[in-house]
Amino acid sequence: MQVSFTPDEIVLIVQPKEKRGSTAETVRGIASLGAAEAGELTFLGNPKYRAEAAGTRASVVLLPLDYDGVPQPNQLHLLVDNPSVALAKLCSRLEQLLWPKPAPGIHPTACVDRRAKIAISATIGPLCVIEADAVVGERSHLQAQVFVGRAAKIGQDCWLMPGVTVAAECELRNRVRLQPGVIVGSDGFGYDFVGGRHEKIPQVGNVVIEDDVEIGSNTTLDRARFSRTVVGEGTKIDNLVQIAHNVTIGRHAILCAQVGVSGSSTISDYAVLGGQAGIGGHITIGRGAKVGGQSAVTFNVDPGAYVNGSPAISYMLGQRLEVLHRRLPELFKRMDKLEKLFPADDAGERG
Amino acid sequence: MQVSFTPDEIVLIVQPKEKRGSTAETVRGIASLGAAEAGELTFLGNPKYRAEAAGTRASVVLLPLDYDGVPQPNQLHLLVDNPSVALAKLCSRLEQLLWPKPAPGIHPTACVDRRAKIAISATIGPLCVIEADAVVGERSHLQAQVFVGRAAKIGQDCWLMPGVTVAAECELRNRVRLQPGVIVGSDGFGYDFVGGRHEKIPQVGNVVIEDDVEIGSNTTLDRARFSRTVVGEGTKIDNLVQIAHNVTIGRHAILCAQVGVSGSSTISDYAVLGGQAGIGGHITIGRGAKVGGQSAVTFNVDPGAYVNGSPAISYMLGQRLEVLHRRLPELFKRMDKLEKLFPADDAGERG
Amino acid sequence: MQVSFTPDEIVLIVQPKEKRGSTAETVRGIASLGAAEAGELTFLGNPKYRAEAAGTRASVVLLPLDYDGVPQPNQLHLLVDNPSVALAKLCSRLEQLLWPKPAPGIHPTACVDRRAKIAISATIGPLCVIEADAVVGERSHLQAQVFVGRAAKIGQDCWLMPGVTVAAECELRNRVRLQPGVIVGSDGFGYDFVGGRHEKIPQVGNVVIEDDVEIGSNTTLDRARFSRTVVGEGTKIDNLVQIAHNVTIGRHAILCAQVGVSGSSTISDYAVLGGQAGIGGHITIGRGAKVGGQSAVTFNVDPGAYVNGSPAISYMLGQRLEVLHRRLPELFKRMDKLEKLFPADDAGERG
Repeated sequence: MQVSFTPDEIVLIVQPKEKRGSTAETVRGIASLGAAEAGELTFLGNPKYRAEAAGTRASVVLLPLDYDGVPQPNQLHLLVDNPSVALAKLCSRLEQLLWPKPAPGIHPTACVDRRAKIAISATIGPLCVIEADAVVGERSHLQAQVFVGRAAKIGQDCWLMPGVTVAAECELRNRVRLQPGVIVGSDGFGYDFVGGRHEKIPQVGNVVIEDDVEIGSNTTLDRARFSRTVVGEGTKIDNLVQIAHNVTIGRHAILCAQVGVSGSSTISDYAVLGGQAGIGGHITIGRGAKVGGQSAVTFNVDPGAYVNGSPAISYMLGQRLEVLHRRLPELFKRMDKLEKLFPADDAGERG
Repeated sequence: MQVSFTPDEIVLIVQPKEKRGSTAETVRGIASLGAAEAGELTFLGNPKYRAEAAGTRASVVLLPLDYDGVPQPNQLHLLVDNPSVALAKLCSRLEQLLWPKPAPGIHPTACVDRRAKIAISATIGPLCVIEADAVVGERSHLQAQVFVGRAAKIGQDCWLMPGVTVAAECELRNRVRLQPGVIVGSDGFGYDFVGGRHEKIPQVGNVVIEDDVEIGSNTTLDRARFSRTVVGEGTKIDNLVQIAHNVTIGRHAILCAQVGVSGSSTISDYAVLGGQAGIGGHITIGRGAKVGGQSAVTFNVDPGAYVNGSPAISYMLGQRLEVLHRRLPELFKRMDKLEKLFPADDAGERG
Repeated sequence: MQVSFTPDEIVLIVQPKEKRGSTAETVRGIASLGAAEAGELTFLGNPKYRAEAAGTRASVVLLPLDYDGVPQPNQLHLLVDNPSVALAKLCSRLEQLLWPKPAPGIHPTACVDRRAKIAISATIGPLCVIEADAVVGERSHLQAQVFVGRAAKIGQDCWLMPGVTVAAECELRNRVRLQPGVIVGSDGFGYDFVGGRHEKIPQVGNVVIEDDVEIGSNTTLDRARFSRTVVGEGTKIDNLVQIAHNVTIGRHAILCAQVGVSGSSTISDYAVLGGQAGIGGHITIGRGAKVGGQSAVTFNVDPGAYVNGSPAISYMLGQRLEVLHRRLPELFKRMDKLEKLFPADDAGERG
């Protein structure tokens, strides 16, 4: 990444509430507090690292308003409401260099069915396949080797990275970003056990992905048995997540990496599922509820609740039980001691 | 999905044992009991939802034989042996519309080595790669962007969806269905630790997938170190599952999403592995055994057994321990109380 | 796999310390001790199977130096330092047949930007896409349908199997082997919660993969928020692993299948992460530390330590607690018995 910002340019972009010190360096890199060198910019985003801010060698430091330290020589402190958001503003300038806007048009190596409808401002990259009756909206970008199946709909300003598959009749609304290898619309996993064999239950619904959803690499979303599997507006899904058939995910939810959601479950608005959590079938995670990483949820979770563990229980109860669990050796010793006070004829019963 | 069935057509397809009521509506959609509207069909598949059947607004309802409710006006009840199977019959009609039979032939953009053998009735879709000495059988369908490596064999009536990889020398028998992104025949994960480095153990076996197997999207199956990794007839594997080298999976097993099976283990016929379960290396899961979701199995499991937990133990024992675990706060209180009856000089010993 | 070795050829390759017995058979296959037939070779690699060695029907058996059994008629025993390494020598001969060296050059169906730099000895297979300013080094092999983004760098002697994606500006050093479907450089998962919505934090760093790394199929590695996500020299990563943004993995580490490593964590040299383990964010796993399968690590782990469980604790403590946990039924009984000796008015307090 070619980075080059003068201190003045940075001030213009992040609009600090306060400036302390100054530097003559041009910023040519971004790094963490501990790793940054002269000529680089750093930031204090996580309070955990506050102690490291004083010693950083960075030339420009983004800091929270309540930071009371003093800059070193040739170092500029910029105090802002939210150093993480300020950094994001800088990085979105860099992002435009990383991903230059592609020219509209259909690459000559793409296979586009003549019954597909491609907006004039869309970009269809090399070696993409678009089947009959599919639709790609204005300014959407299919980067390379993307597959869009029969009658699938891609809205406006979407970005499908290399190797994405959107199967027949599935629908992406607007500004949907799919990282490489995402599969939208594979068959749901449903069989009837008949005569000693698993007979396939046809999966004839689809997947609908609403506005502003982002989905991580190699994540899979199955089409509904009938009707639709839904991912609501603004929801963000990380890598290698599994969304089963007929799942409904609400708006602005967060699903971390390697989460699995079983069939017909509902993840409500603003819910947060930690990495590797598993959600059973036919259950509901309430609005704003939090599920800890690696938890296994097998029952409905109330709105706003925080559950954890496998099987999941309330976070507070889980913490308490965990503490007592680690005191089991002590408890067994105390039991032994008490029993010695009352010698009985039952020694044989003990494990 | 364009759905259109008259009530008479539905009766003809599902062959009900009993009809109650009638409707004049053409069915134009399928939905769950709670979501269905007039003009749609619904079904009672899971007894959990029995109470919702009475209030559904669907025009046609598939019900089990023992259902004793009365249809609403302009509503048709069809009583069948298995509502889920009856719905599947309807949906398989729809499936033919969703996935129209492709014309046989090799798409001009496919790269097919001249030493590959492609059956005359097979369909090789756009941008597929088929290497030398590979074989594709009658009526098999490689949808798009599929890779079939050197000397790999695809049997008859297989369906490989977009982005599937079948590496060199692997073998699919007949009627195998691979969802998008499946990898068959990546290298097994094996290294010898020599001189402070991990030296690769060559993986020169293959993967054999028997008749009527279905494998979910982005699932990975590694080739054997030597000999073969096997998936037995009729077994169904969900999305994002990992099958390591030299694993043998029997017939008609079920592996739910995100399961991992370590090297050289055996999953016997009719076994069922719940989502995110992990199976250690060199162990055997007996015929018809069940492993709960998110369990970690590190020892052989008897035929027909049901194990659960991480580490996995018998389901019944696990349930009992879980109940007692949640009673730990009570147990510690009882201990405190008893000890108070016998004040001793040992307070310092307690955690 | 076409296998054909005379006993003399095998002796020449594995250089045994001692020979016992002899066979006239040509070896035409390799199989495990129990499965091998006459005309096949087998080996005793895992001491667990020692008892099976005596009864094997294989014609040639690779055995450790301390093996004291006697060969059967027409059976050759070869005693070697390490039977597994000896077998690897044989298999690397077979590997050359399985993966014949491809001819250098660019396949006519590959889309290579004219500003990409492809070494003359590299092989770019069918339907690959290579964007502007990308570099592919000497003898590297992009097998088929590989994507290499703008300004990405592939070193020398790398092998990228079908469907691999290396996104813009990422870097692979030398002798890196990526199994099918690997994604290098998808966006890190980072959002700021602003005004009820998750605002994307631009991810403008890259991924650097050092010499001799191997990565399993469909594994995903996210680009850094800024700076780099790093996989150190000689590290081996299995299938379906998730590496989040800004993670640093040291040298010669082992990450088994379906492991997840959260953002900004460090996995030090020689660490070993068991299958499905989850590592929280911003923590360090010390040099040579071991994390058990399915463990959840939420704190720093000391060099050389062995932790296990969810949440992870020291392996020894975990084993002890597990034993006591299973004795909970006994402990409750002992408590009941003691309490009976002291009848009180507190029965109502018990769970």
